[in-house]
Amino acid sequence: MSIIKPIIWTGSSLKLLDQTCLPATERYVECYSGKEVVAAIKNLVVRGAPAIGVAAAFGLALSAQKVATKDELWKHLHTVARDLLRSRPTAVNLFWAVKRITSLEKNISHLDLADQVEAIAKGAEKIYQEDIENNKKIGEKGAKLLPDKANILTHCNAGALATAGFGTALGVIRAAHQAGKKIHVFVDETRPVLQGSRLTAWELCQEGIDATLITDNCAGFLMKQKKIDFVIVGADRIAANGDVANKIGTYSLAVLAKEHNIPFIVAAPLSTIDFETNSGDNIVLEERSEEEIKKISGIQIAPEKIKAYNISFDITPAKYITFLVTEKKVISCVNEISLSSLKN
Amino acid sequence: MSIIKPIIWTGSSLKLLDQTCLPATERYVECYSGKEVVAAIKNLVVRGAPAIGVAAAFGLALSAQKVATKDELWKHLHTVARDLLRSRPTAVNLFWAVKRITSLEKNISHLDLADQVEAIAKGAEKIYQEDIENNKKIGEKGAKLLPDKANILTHCNAGALATAGFGTALGVIRAAHQAGKKIHVFVDETRPVLQGSRLTAWELCQEGIDATLITDNCAGFLMKQKKIDFVIVGADRIAANGDVANKIGTYSLAVLAKEHNIPFIVAAPLSTIDFETNSGDNIVLEERSEEEIKKISGIQIAPEKIKAYNISFDITPAKYITFLVTEKKVISCVNEISLSSLKN
Repeated sequence: MSIIKPIIWTGSSLKLLDQTCLPATERYVECYSGKEVVAAIKNLVVRGAPAIGVAAAFGLALSAQKVATKDELWKHLHTVARDLLRSRPTAVNLFWAVKRITSLEKNISHLDLADQVEAIAKGAEKIYQEDIENNKKIGEKGAKLLPDKANILTHCNAGALATAGFGTALGVIRAAHQAGKKIHVFVDETRPVLQGSRLTAWELCQEGIDATLITDNCAGFLMKQKKIDFVIVGADRIAANGDVANKIGTYSLAVLAKEHNIPFIVAAPLSTIDFETNSGDNIVLEERSEEEIKKISGIQIAPEKIKAYNISFDITPAKYITFLVTEKKVISCVNEISLSSLKN
Repeated sequence: MSIIKPIIWTGSSLKLLDQTCLPATERYVECYSGKEVVAAIKNLVVRGAPAIGVAAAFGLALSAQKVATKDELWKHLHTVARDLLRSRPTAVNLFWAVKRITSLEKNISHLDLADQVEAIAKGAEKIYQEDIENNKKIGEKGAKLLPDKANILTHCNAGALATAGFGTALGVIRAAHQAGKKIHVFVDETRPVLQGSRLTAWELCQEGIDATLITDNCAGFLMKQKKIDFVIVGADRIAANGDVANKIGTYSLAVLAKEHNIPFIVAAPLSTIDFETNSGDNIVLEERSEEEIKKISGIQIAPEKIKAYNISFDITPAKYITFLVTEKKVISCVNEISLSSLKN
């Protein structure tokens, strides 16, 4: 297991490790309603595709607890669900988790309010537990791909902080480390929000995994110097054809990895695969505020009047992916046919 | 011409537009000795390969003015020259300019002290003037490569601020703009020192050239979206075989440009070509402080105990370069033979 607890369910509140304050301050934001969870997702207090899904499920559980009568329950939950779904557009786990909770309605709507509220909370807890279990399976399967003394480059944060508590890309690294392999990680700082330097570097320090922080500009140089053996990233959404939406910069890394014959590994749970979207071209990519680029920690770093373009994700076509590691199996030829074998 | 004056020679001092304070504050650091110029180069008050060369030449002119007797002159200047050469290792223009001034010795050492001091200042002024003229020729020749409505990506700052006052890569863009072409520039912010967001964005705003700031991570995505027609960068040193040392991240852009069939243009004066270094593998690449990555504007953005690796430059092999634009001519097949045609 990981010692990092990004999401704590108390039964009547959801405590989220505030990822906007790391690494300087470790503090929890406590949410008592679905509305507060929506705000926490929007403000990046909780981020990372699987973690957003888990938080959204608990958000619905909290909203259910606020309802006074059985008649209001599902009407209210569908309103909260709509707000959750609008909070961030790219990570599909959010849609998956919300759907899983709202689809309980048909099976439990005949129960008393209290029983329904309990069933919804149990449903959210199940998503949480499954996420950890799936992460561990991903870690176990992915770690087998990594030899001793491997040098691994990772981008953004697909770690304990991005999930219920073990990680996908970092889960693979964590599992290899726990299996006694001497692993060294190069951490892309991941501009603009610096999830690499703020979150991944912090996680690896916490767990004593050997790591070196670099700027995103340095990756190509290190590959050319043969300092990188593998690239491992997570995913925010995987289309049915295997195209991967992930943090901006992932596609550049995939092209660089191809040029240098370095295996490019995507680690993600099945809940990240969106079988209803046929290709990466049809995935909605979130565009965020110019200020994330023009300011750092509130300090202006660019001229006031320059335009800035801040797209948060990019699409890596399936052909660049050497291995897709899921909890079910590792796929080494990523395409529509191999992905369809993961259904059910 | 450019309205930006990064280097002003007063005859008894050197005023350098402090590039560490841009874009927030426009202030000059005034140097009265070669020693002060060494500090300004080390601290990045002045940066950019051609600008460093020009500043170093004026630094020697200032040091010459400090000498009391003719006998001391060249002994003192060789000491200052040694410190200048140690200030930054990668940009070859520094070595070129220092050599050009110190090689005056054999021709002028028979003159009176005052005449020698004047000749040295004139030598520095000549380097300054030639740099502007060469930049303009580079601009003129390079601009012909750019069609109307071209979308150009640039990295770091190879503009007026990096030279005596017109620019190499930005000189090409500036010349195309001045020729009435509607140009749009994507500006890589260029971590870690942010020369793109702080300097290039500021220059383009000053001159009213349409520009959009992006993170370095965004370049691959924009290329895949066919939003970029050309990549143009400067150079800190070009080996005899055409390999280019330039700001870290340049090599990644070159690989991405190749993958997307986008012309990759390097614009640099002949003084950047180091015919004594046969290949990029033999160019010394400066490694700077971890703090440039771990802090921004003094604010800690990464865990205290994470290691960081901060290499300032990388090498782009000649094969990735579509055009090398110099003041003499444009080379479209960059290799040892075509480069040797630039000699003399």
